Amino acid sequence: MASFDILEIESWERFYRANFINSITGFKSVNLIGTVDTAGRTNLGIFSSIVHIGSNPPLIGYINRPIGAAPHTLANIKATGVYTINHIHPSIVQQAHQTSAKYEVGISEFKEVGLTPEFYENIAAPFVKESNIKYALSLQEIIPIKLNNTFLVIGKVISIHIEKDIISEDGFLHLDKVNSICSNGIDAYYTTELIERFKYAKPGIQPKKLY
Amino acid sequence: MASFDILEIESWERFYRANFINSITGFKSVNLIGTVDTAGRTNLGIFSSIVHIGSNPPLIGYINRPIGAAPHTLANIKATGVYTINHIHPSIVQQAHQTSAKYEVGISEFKEVGLTPEFYENIAAPFVKESNIKYALSLQEIIPIKLNNTFLVIGKVISIHIEKDIISEDGFLHLDKVNSICSNGIDAYYTTELIERFKYAKPGIQPKKLY
Repeated sequence: MASFDILEIESWERFYRANFINSITGFKSVNLIGTVDTAGRTNLGIFSSIVHIGSNPPLIGYINRPIGAAPHTLANIKATGVYTINHIHPSIVQQAHQTSAKYEVGISEFKEVGLTPEFYENIAAPFVKESNIKYALSLQEIIPIKLNNTFLVIGKVISIHIEKDIISEDGFLHLDKVNSICSNGIDAYYTTELIERFKYAKPGIQPKKLY
Repeated sequence: MASFDILEIESWERFYRANFINSITGFKSVNLIGTVDTAGRTNLGIFSSIVHIGSNPPLIGYINRPIGAAPHTLANIKATGVYTINHIHPSIVQQAHQTSAKYEVGISEFKEVGLTPEFYENIAAPFVKESNIKYALSLQEIIPIKLNNTFLVIGKVISIHIEKDIISEDGFLHLDKVNSICSNGIDAYYTTELIERFKYAKPGIQPKKLY
């Protein structure tokens, strides 16, 4: 084992530290967030900071970088109050990664990277047609994180579009059956393989497999 | 594709909705958080809401459920200001899942599930000896999320212990080489396989593989 203390961590070169700290947090959900500005121009960005906040009501958060670093998505969400989150599978991972390039305001990443905006009734924000699992959120709260000028953006799930075959009887979704991917660090993408589902754990009882 | 609107989502049975909403957020980082109370009694809990907040300073957050639902971890963090985050690999996934059982206050999950507390100099909180990637955090801020009475708990990384072989020249960590797992929903665990690392994306240039 190698050990590093805070003095050593803080001494690391900026990009080295960014790669390292973005990796120790572990594999993470990576998704495309679709938005639209008030002029109807679409925007698409890749985010790996989606976090489950609660199921009742269905609340999902993501961390938005400081304003200026990636302004389009958050500006659009503020302006319209609605956005979509779209899973990524291996066939579109190159296009998904390419949305992280710094395009000018008003340029649609959909067109630039080759993905297709798709609209469902009553939702102003664009979904990604190629995505197998996608949902829309209504903005609930933007919580500023003063420690580093980032934001926790929280939305309520208002619409879900999903391959029917992956829905289990108990509501669990077999994400691996439609090849949803996860990410590590800032630039690495992974497929997954199920180890096990376990039953609800109780004190003094050995963990049991669900199937 | 199956479509669900907010009225249908809100009509779902509680556990069905919890499974569904916990799955649509995608694969997520799953870790053991180690803490100690002021009497020195150790506690270990499994959390799948770790989120990267920033690398400079190195800030990592997690969502803690409402007080009462899982009080030990947050109470200990508040009392001592320090906690550890420990990756999980397949050999310890059963033990890790079992920490989610509702043990009485003062009962150590380490002993109950069969994992080993490990202490490093100057860090009061216990690490998991069996874990291949582990780090300690110093509490920076607890942000209440009023929408559902949860908390975003943010810590600064102050100490890292990790298998040396997985560290790349650029700081990226090959988490799959030590079999770090991810999770889906509230009870499913997965191994991963690398698809690709991509170079920093630039407008107008096709995404390039890093290796």
